[in-house]
Amino acid sequence: MSVPAESSPPGLEADWLALAAHASRLEDFSIARAFDNDPGRAAAMRIQACGLQLDYSRQRMDEQVQEALLKLADAADFDRHRSAFFAGERINTTEHRAALHMALRAQGEADFLVDEGSVMPEVQAVRERLLAFSESVRSGDWRGATGKRIKTVINIGIGGSDLGPRMVCRALQEHSQVLPRNVGPELRFVSNVDPAAMQGALAGASPDETLFVITSKTFTTAETMANAAAGRRWLVSALGEAAVAQHFVAVSTNAEAVNAFGIGESSMFEFWDWVGGRFSLWSAVGLSIALQVGADAFTDLQQGAADMDQHFLHAPPAENLPLMLALIGIWNRNFLGRSGLVVVPYADRLEHFVAWLQQLEMESNGKGVTREGETVQWSTCPQIWGDVGTNAQHAFFQLLHQGPDWSPVDFILPVGSEGDDQQQRMLVSNCLAQAAALMRGRTASEVRRRMCAAGADEETLERLVTPRVFPGNRASNLLLLPKLDAYHLGALLAAYEHKVFVQGVIWQINSFDQWGVELGKLIADGVLAALAGEEMAGTDAATRASIADCLRLLEGADDGD
Amino acid sequence: MSVPAESSPPGLEADWLALAAHASRLEDFSIARAFDNDPGRAAAMRIQACGLQLDYSRQRMDEQVQEALLKLADAADFDRHRSAFFAGERINTTEHRAALHMALRAQGEADFLVDEGSVMPEVQAVRERLLAFSESVRSGDWRGATGKRIKTVINIGIGGSDLGPRMVCRALQEHSQVLPRNVGPELRFVSNVDPAAMQGALAGASPDETLFVITSKTFTTAETMANAAAGRRWLVSALGEAAVAQHFVAVSTNAEAVNAFGIGESSMFEFWDWVGGRFSLWSAVGLSIALQVGADAFTDLQQGAADMDQHFLHAPPAENLPLMLALIGIWNRNFLGRSGLVVVPYADRLEHFVAWLQQLEMESNGKGVTREGETVQWSTCPQIWGDVGTNAQHAFFQLLHQGPDWSPVDFILPVGSEGDDQQQRMLVSNCLAQAAALMRGRTASEVRRRMCAAGADEETLERLVTPRVFPGNRASNLLLLPKLDAYHLGALLAAYEHKVFVQGVIWQINSFDQWGVELGKLIADGVLAALAGEEMAGTDAATRASIADCLRLLEGADDGD
Repeated sequence: MSVPAESSPPGLEADWLALAAHASRLEDFSIARAFDNDPGRAAAMRIQACGLQLDYSRQRMDEQVQEALLKLADAADFDRHRSAFFAGERINTTEHRAALHMALRAQGEADFLVDEGSVMPEVQAVRERLLAFSESVRSGDWRGATGKRIKTVINIGIGGSDLGPRMVCRALQEHSQVLPRNVGPELRFVSNVDPAAMQGALAGASPDETLFVITSKTFTTAETMANAAAGRRWLVSALGEAAVAQHFVAVSTNAEAVNAFGIGESSMFEFWDWVGGRFSLWSAVGLSIALQVGADAFTDLQQGAADMDQHFLHAPPAENLPLMLALIGIWNRNFLGRSGLVVVPYADRLEHFVAWLQQLEMESNGKGVTREGETVQWSTCPQIWGDVGTNAQHAFFQLLHQGPDWSPVDFILPVGSEGDDQQQRMLVSNCLAQAAALMRGRTASEVRRRMCAAGADEETLERLVTPRVFPGNRASNLLLLPKLDAYHLGALLAAYEHKVFVQGVIWQINSFDQWGVELGKLIADGVLAALAGEEMAGTDAATRASIADCLRLLEGADDGD
Repeated sequence: MSVPAESSPPGLEADWLALAAHASRLEDFSIARAFDNDPGRAAAMRIQACGLQLDYSRQRMDEQVQEALLKLADAADFDRHRSAFFAGERINTTEHRAALHMALRAQGEADFLVDEGSVMPEVQAVRERLLAFSESVRSGDWRGATGKRIKTVINIGIGGSDLGPRMVCRALQEHSQVLPRNVGPELRFVSNVDPAAMQGALAGASPDETLFVITSKTFTTAETMANAAAGRRWLVSALGEAAVAQHFVAVSTNAEAVNAFGIGESSMFEFWDWVGGRFSLWSAVGLSIALQVGADAFTDLQQGAADMDQHFLHAPPAENLPLMLALIGIWNRNFLGRSGLVVVPYADRLEHFVAWLQQLEMESNGKGVTREGETVQWSTCPQIWGDVGTNAQHAFFQLLHQGPDWSPVDFILPVGSEGDDQQQRMLVSNCLAQAAALMRGRTASEVRRRMCAAGADEETLERLVTPRVFPGNRASNLLLLPKLDAYHLGALLAAYEHKVFVQGVIWQINSFDQWGVELGKLIADGVLAALAGEEMAGTDAATRASIADCLRLLEGADDGD
């Protein structure tokens, strides 16, 4: 595997060259052999934090690479950037904002400032109101307009206002069922503007037992407002205008628009401009989480993240879990030329984890411009994809094992479980086995030996030996959680958040803006007008042709049914 | 964009070189300019089939490239391979099997042979039994052991026995609700061995109203049999052994094992060795689909696929939709060096489409060995990933628009809808807008002009112009469906199936085996034994260390709770 060296970010030339030289030195590196040569490898390449363990011993790297990566972080002024981040400096320079989601989950005495003022009083005030409200719904103190308890909560939001709460609610679903006071309502999530999304969420719900949580920072997000209006029509047609106040709450910063919708001040939960959408589940955007799992588990979730924040802030570099997770990614991306990162959680309840992570990583670091406004000349965020194991083994693992172009894998394994012990052990053994198979592979002579022992004839050997060879030497991380509970989930999420921060520092990009979503929205307004028959000035021939196609089909659909 | 030329598959050297030369010729190709230069481009680069339209005018290619790609297919003996495929030849050479899923959906007079014998009589016999059974459950003729109607169906299967039925059931869910005779039960899917999966499926279900569909070709798949056993225990503990026959059906080829489980012959639906798992939803594996949508819609689904089969078999190359879809993929992968393909269906009901496609493409063509048993020296299947729009716009589209390393996108857009017309038009306009934004991009001077018009000062321009630039010239396909109904869904799925076949022909690999799943399973057995305390001979140090970690955590979990 020989990968052309990439240009270095400014100021990192020497460390970049050193790492490229290590990549050449390790061209024939064998992970399996490295274990043979160094009995201490497994123990050395493990980091514990907040009950989690990152095992990166199956990466294509050695101690020298690790040292060179840590030097790179140093050269990129990681320390200074991390301090600025935690100090609430306006590191999101294009939007002139801080990125201070750590304040949202801070517990006890911890303090966070923006512009020398503590944000903690308002954070705590909103947190208290939020938990009081969610507990009142869960206990049945909060009632609908006809005096009934809330059985169904419909969360309307998109992007960070959907993926985080949706993922956590699913991840802690069974957990919430075993709590003694499980009085939580059923949670449903609507994000897509596709009318089928809201139709599905309303199916079987009773207006007088339904609460809508509308989440939009600006209260102008097109999809969210369209769905909120649809939900409002459904409710009002059953219960009348006066019922809106008891069946809608808002998570937003736009009090005026929230009020105009019919939601009172006491049902609005705010957050701040230093909370990015993809980092917002810790804020009032997590209201749906609190409604599902209750105040205690929500606090545990925050505590796990807060502990990971402290670990990230204070652990020495070589023992710093998010830092090493980030540097391993840099190694695979920029020096081994890997274009993807496959993430496979071995837990059904983490089925939405990859979708959450896709936004976190690709919206943060899928950037082509440096903090200085220069075009990057090196690779940034890889393509992030994956699915839960063992399912994924029966879907795309074929490519991971035998495709010619390998991608590194992050295996995430909550080891303990509340369910069937034997099935849980099967799950665990499958995860370890996949990591082993990727690393070890299988040679032609091993296949031949095994087949001969089973009595295969020459024709069969000729036909089947090569297809059963596995190249091996494919890298993976193994992230162990003692179990999938609120605390360890919180720590896991914060670990990936900080990984993304570190990579942004090294790639010299702003991880906290998202200008790449702007242009499509702008063009969509024009297309929508054109679909309504307006002349569309200045659009391109491709779009004009597609609009004509769609108009024909839309009219056909109107006629045909 | 300069990409190193790849080695050619044997026999294709001249065409491969020609295409590499076109890639060099088009290094500065602008899609947007191509529309300016050729007013006929939009019309020329569209293919209709079975009501679907593939618009590939936003690819980075011109007519000469298209001709060169068609010549490549010719040189790869596409015609002969397609004939062998449809003739039921044993093109899956490693397993010595045909790949004849087209027979499963063939309607009317169409005939398919394996070894000169028609498979249609047995296909039709199973199809009739299957539809009769599913209708009897839907109508309430089939009852549980206590005489109650079936309200819940739990589909237990993994890989192809899960992803296809799960995807189609969701895609046609609302559709089924508007059919006059909607008497279908609620479908639930269990695939993962994670005990949380089965726990979730059983929550709220009544044993006497629940039917289990166990799908496993061999009836030995580890995950499926573990879950089937768990389901059986749950049922038997409520209703006794005698109830098993009325609450379990099997889709399998292993009559003996099915019988031993307690399922009678009349409740077993078979399929054949020429049905690959990832192509099996058209077979009895589609039982859950028939249970949800009914016989008429199931037949429409098959009809759509059968019509696409005929199109693929008979349409001239330049108007052959699956063929062009495949060749565009070859162009992007092997000549423009694109390592991923992002698939974005603009329909909430297609939320499981990408997972189904991941298996279809990556398990079929994620291979590193040719049909002749040689190691490939060229790229094969790209990384397939994506999510539904508009959700994905608020998640990872940032990277697609502004990440330095672009990936082509397949937009899939069912234009008509049964829901809110205005929201549907918003959905359509967003899809077209994203394709336009990827293609057009936005230059610094456009940004500057817009910002100056809005009154921006110098500091703001300095800070924000570059981050708001979009490089553009990023390729996409636009696949239009008149609506998301059974017929057009069937046609869409078959189009991708045949795309995969064509790419396998050109990459000279066997698209129908999956040896890459073998090694992990083998190792998992040993790890499972080691977790139960057995000595594990011959394993590697990495796995030994991980087993020790997991044992510690498993025991901790046992003690702690």
